[in-house]
Amino acid sequence: MCDVCVMNAVKDRMLSRRDLMRGGVAAGVAGLAMGATTTPALADAHGSVRDLTHTYGPDFPTFFGVPGITMEQAYKFEEDGFNLWNLSINEHTGTHIDAPLHFSADGKSVDAIEVGNLVVPLCVVDIRERSSFDADAQVTPDDLTAWISANGDIPDRACVAMLSGWADKVAEPSYRGEDESGGLHFPGFHPDATAMLLEMTSAAAIAVDTLSLDYGQSADFATHYAWLPAGRYGIENIAGLDQMPAAGATLFVGAPKHAGGSGGPARIFAVA
Amino acid sequence: MCDVCVMNAVKDRMLSRRDLMRGGVAAGVAGLAMGATTTPALADAHGSVRDLTHTYGPDFPTFFGVPGITMEQAYKFEEDGFNLWNLSINEHTGTHIDAPLHFSADGKSVDAIEVGNLVVPLCVVDIRERSSFDADAQVTPDDLTAWISANGDIPDRACVAMLSGWADKVAEPSYRGEDESGGLHFPGFHPDATAMLLEMTSAAAIAVDTLSLDYGQSADFATHYAWLPAGRYGIENIAGLDQMPAAGATLFVGAPKHAGGSGGPARIFAVA
Repeated sequence: MCDVCVMNAVKDRMLSRRDLMRGGVAAGVAGLAMGATTTPALADAHGSVRDLTHTYGPDFPTFFGVPGITMEQAYKFEEDGFNLWNLSINEHTGTHIDAPLHFSADGKSVDAIEVGNLVVPLCVVDIRERSSFDADAQVTPDDLTAWISANGDIPDRACVAMLSGWADKVAEPSYRGEDESGGLHFPGFHPDATAMLLEMTSAAAIAVDTLSLDYGQSADFATHYAWLPAGRYGIENIAGLDQMPAAGATLFVGAPKHAGGSGGPARIFAVA
Repeated sequence: MCDVCVMNAVKDRMLSRRDLMRGGVAAGVAGLAMGATTTPALADAHGSVRDLTHTYGPDFPTFFGVPGITMEQAYKFEEDGFNLWNLSINEHTGTHIDAPLHFSADGKSVDAIEVGNLVVPLCVVDIRERSSFDADAQVTPDDLTAWISANGDIPDRACVAMLSGWADKVAEPSYRGEDESGGLHFPGFHPDATAMLLEMTSAAAIAVDTLSLDYGQSADFATHYAWLPAGRYGIENIAGLDQMPAAGATLFVGAPKHAGGSGGPARIFAVA
């Protein structure tokens, strides 16, 4: 089926199901995120918390191939009675956020992303069957259609996350996959899948377990340029997706809150 | 009643109540934090999420009185097609974590704090009645005893947070409260209260809505030196506690995860 045919078929299906969703998962999480209700939550919830954040330092791989953080010790316990480091950080380092402002002239900065878009349903799209032998694999509309067939509609304000298996390679050269000519090779979101999410869902975010929302071979950053200026945000270098269910978990995106930033290192938890 | 008498009285009371707590709030949250159970949580929880994090920039008040963050724009959308800033950050800036390593030779660094200690019950100790007219007010054992009398025992792994009302002053000189001789004036935890929490609870963290765990007039950082080397951690400059219940909320502490750090800016949510 052509991309447009798939999109139309899925769109029809989503519209026909929309009424059925009221009161379901989407409504529950939307209620949570927007503070619409006041019932105590987690104390009675008995879920489990997972950390989806890589520890990072100067050796953590970066898109540009240079250290994304350096640390200078300003105070030492032995001499000063306490320890303190000054950090120099490229905003787009480690497990981090791409705010709309990253690829737009006047999009939302990282501190302006609504809290209701930071505590959201997590949809894990597993493409490991292809990415295990193809470092240039991408999330396609077919992958999204398959996810919806198996799990139901993509919830309002969801984060749709690509599981390529790359988080396991973070200490290896294959994480960047640099070839002899300097080109990079790692999976990402195909622009057609991004367009489908933009047109047919209110997903707040897409996430990748690689260095970039666009796959490494992208010549034009088409997914960045489509997704971020639309007011949605991205997560790069997410970890631990292989421990999460395809649907049903809730993501807590601890985005940094420096004023006017284009993104930054985040702490991300999931409750499932 | 003397401090020791209060502590003994409370200790007796806590020990006698311990058996009653099994299966209650503490067990529920502990189960959540440790992943002991697998029931989906938040999708069915219908709680409300609050952001307890200040937005921060170069103007945000700091203990030392100099900017805690500077931002240099490395790429500009108009010229480069995207925006990106390099950040220079003093770890102890904005709403942030004090890891055990901050005041110890070899305590846990910020990336090593267990996830089970970052998703914890929140206990809000409201001292505004005193701090509203006394910038040197401190959380005392009596405050903790009163909280326990009203709300029950302090749950395992809790974060015990001081609500002094200082978050409302963050844009005013009174947040630092610097006097003519350079001394600072803002509330904090009295070392006796810190000792009581260390001896009688397994609280994971203490939090303050001011610049320091110790009050501004502290000459010896006694609370820092007691609390952090014991392997517990602190949160400074927390916001929004006046929107939280005294008991029953769950805190999600999005601590940064740079390797070996003594702390750092965090994104903190609460679900109540």
